[in-house]
Amino acid sequence: MTHKRSDRPGELDDRLDALLADVLGKVDSKDPRLGDLITSLVGHLHAFVRETRPTEAEWLAGIDFLVRTGQTCTPQRNEFILLSDMLGLTSAVDDVNHAGPAGATPSSVEGPFHAAAPPRENGAWIATGPERERGQVMVVRGRVSDTDGNPIAGATVDIWQADDAGHYDSQDPAQEAGNLRGLFTTDQDGGYWFRSVVPSSYPVPTDGPVGGLLHALGRHPMRPAHIHYRVEAPGHRPVTTHVFVAGDEYLGSDAAFAVKEELIVTPLTDHDPARAARLGVDAPFADFVFDVRLVRLGESA
Amino acid sequence: MTHKRSDRPGELDDRLDALLADVLGKVDSKDPRLGDLITSLVGHLHAFVRETRPTEAEWLAGIDFLVRTGQTCTPQRNEFILLSDMLGLTSAVDDVNHAGPAGATPSSVEGPFHAAAPPRENGAWIATGPERERGQVMVVRGRVSDTDGNPIAGATVDIWQADDAGHYDSQDPAQEAGNLRGLFTTDQDGGYWFRSVVPSSYPVPTDGPVGGLLHALGRHPMRPAHIHYRVEAPGHRPVTTHVFVAGDEYLGSDAAFAVKEELIVTPLTDHDPARAARLGVDAPFADFVFDVRLVRLGESA
Repeated sequence: MTHKRSDRPGELDDRLDALLADVLGKVDSKDPRLGDLITSLVGHLHAFVRETRPTEAEWLAGIDFLVRTGQTCTPQRNEFILLSDMLGLTSAVDDVNHAGPAGATPSSVEGPFHAAAPPRENGAWIATGPERERGQVMVVRGRVSDTDGNPIAGATVDIWQADDAGHYDSQDPAQEAGNLRGLFTTDQDGGYWFRSVVPSSYPVPTDGPVGGLLHALGRHPMRPAHIHYRVEAPGHRPVTTHVFVAGDEYLGSDAAFAVKEELIVTPLTDHDPARAARLGVDAPFADFVFDVRLVRLGESA
Repeated sequence: MTHKRSDRPGELDDRLDALLADVLGKVDSKDPRLGDLITSLVGHLHAFVRETRPTEAEWLAGIDFLVRTGQTCTPQRNEFILLSDMLGLTSAVDDVNHAGPAGATPSSVEGPFHAAAPPRENGAWIATGPERERGQVMVVRGRVSDTDGNPIAGATVDIWQADDAGHYDSQDPAQEAGNLRGLFTTDQDGGYWFRSVVPSSYPVPTDGPVGGLLHALGRHPMRPAHIHYRVEAPGHRPVTTHVFVAGDEYLGSDAAFAVKEELIVTPLTDHDPARAARLGVDAPFADFVFDVRLVRLGESA
C-alpha cells in the first residue's frame, strides 16, 4: 500500500492512520500471540509519535539511547531489565501475572541479583564475612503456610540480600560467593529461620544510560533496604518477592516501584540476653518476622 | 508511595493505575520536553502491559530481543534504526515533521546508507563500475523549483542508490567508495541530470534480531527499487526523500513503509539513437524524470 498526500485539514492524521493500518496489516504471524503483542505495541508506539511529534533529532537521540543501553549489557549486567524496573514496567508485569487471593503473600519483582544459593540448615548464618561484625545483627524467622494458615513443611525458602553497605556478593570482590544467600527448608511447623545483618538501601547502577536517564528526569536511584525471598512448595504456586525494612527513608520512593504495604516488616529490637544466647547472637539484636502464605494450585483468585 | 493490595473487583486496574501515577509523579525533569516525551512513552508502555498481560517469560523474551538488537549495532550498522523502519515508526516521525504545502515534494525516510557523495558535473556517470555493463542504463533528469514552479539555480542534489544487484557501495567490496553517489548542482534553469543504471529492489539485513522478527511476523524484508535524494537550496526547506521505480513488485509492500504515490516515477524507454548519442548512452535507454519542488522558508503549510 502507498500513502497519498493531500492537504485538507486532518490530512496528517489520515496519513498516520493509513500508515499504522498498513504496518498492522502486514502482521501475518503463525504465532497469534506474537501477532497480538506486536499489534498492541506498535499501536502504542505510533500513538506516542502522534502525540509527541518527536523531531528527527529527538528520535535519533532515543535510538542512540537504546543502542547504548544494549551495548552496556554484559553477562553480569542487563541494562534493559534495569530500564524496565526504573519505568515501573517490571512491577506492572509482576502485577498482571500475580494477582493472588486475599491473604496470599504478594509477589514483587525478582531483580537482577538472584543466583543459586547454598543450601543451609535453619538457624545458619548467611552473613559469613566481616559484615557480621560491622552490621546490625538480625534474626529472620517466620512460617510458610497456605492461605488458610495450614503450615507447609518442606517448603524451600531461597533468600538473597545486600550487606550493611548495600552490596550483593556478585558486586563486591570482598564477599565470598554465596554470602548473604541461603536456601532453607521449612520444618514440620512450616518454620524457617536464619541469622544475618540488616541490609542497607543502595543505588541501582548509575554509570550507564539508565543512570543518565534517571538523572535527566530528576530522580534518585535508591532502593529501600530489603531481603529477597523465593518460596516454593509442591502443590502451591511459588512466590518471588522482597521484604522491606520499615523506616527506610526510600520506602516511599523506591526507584524500582517494588514496595507493597504487606511486604514491609518492622524489625523489633530484642534486649533479652537469654533469648539472644539461645539464638546464638549478642543482645540487643533485631528480630525480623515474616510469614509467607502460598496459594494452593487450583485455588481461585 | 506504596501500593496496597485488596481483592475487590477492579483491584488489578486500580493497582496498575496507582503504579503508573507513581512512576509519572516521579518525573521532575529540568527539561520539560523530556518530561513530556517520557510521560507519553511510559503511559503507552504501561497500557501495552495492561492490554496484553505479558507473561514473565514473554517480557524477558522482549528484553532479550532488545539486548540482542543493541549488541548487533556497529559503527556501520544500526539495528535499532532498522527496527524503527520496519515498524513504520521512522516513516511516522518523517510524517509528523514534514507535512508540506500542496505541490511540495514529499519527504521520505533517509535510511541508513547516506554518505558524503563526490561532487559531480551534470551529465556525469554515477555508475563507475561493471554495473554499467551489466545493468539497464538510465538517464535521470529533472528540475528543482519552488512550489510555484519558479526554477531554483544552484540547488544541491545529493543522490545515492543501490546497483542493479541491490547493493550500495558500503555493502559491496567490489564497488569503489562513492560509486552510485553524486552531489550535483542545478543549472540556470534549475535542471540537473546524470547517467546511471536502474537500481534493484533489495532485502534489508536479515541476519540480526530484526530479520528474525520479520520472519516471525510472516513479513518479507524487501524494499522496492529506489533512488535517494536530498535537495537543498538557500531560502528553502531542504527535502530528503526517495524516488521509486514504477512497476517494482514490492511497491505495495515496502518493508520500510516509505512509499508515497507522488514519489513513484515510470521510466520511459527511449529508442531514439540521436537522443541517446547526445546524452552519451546507447539506445534504448531508460529516461527517468523527477522534478523537485521545495518549500520556501516562511511559506505556510
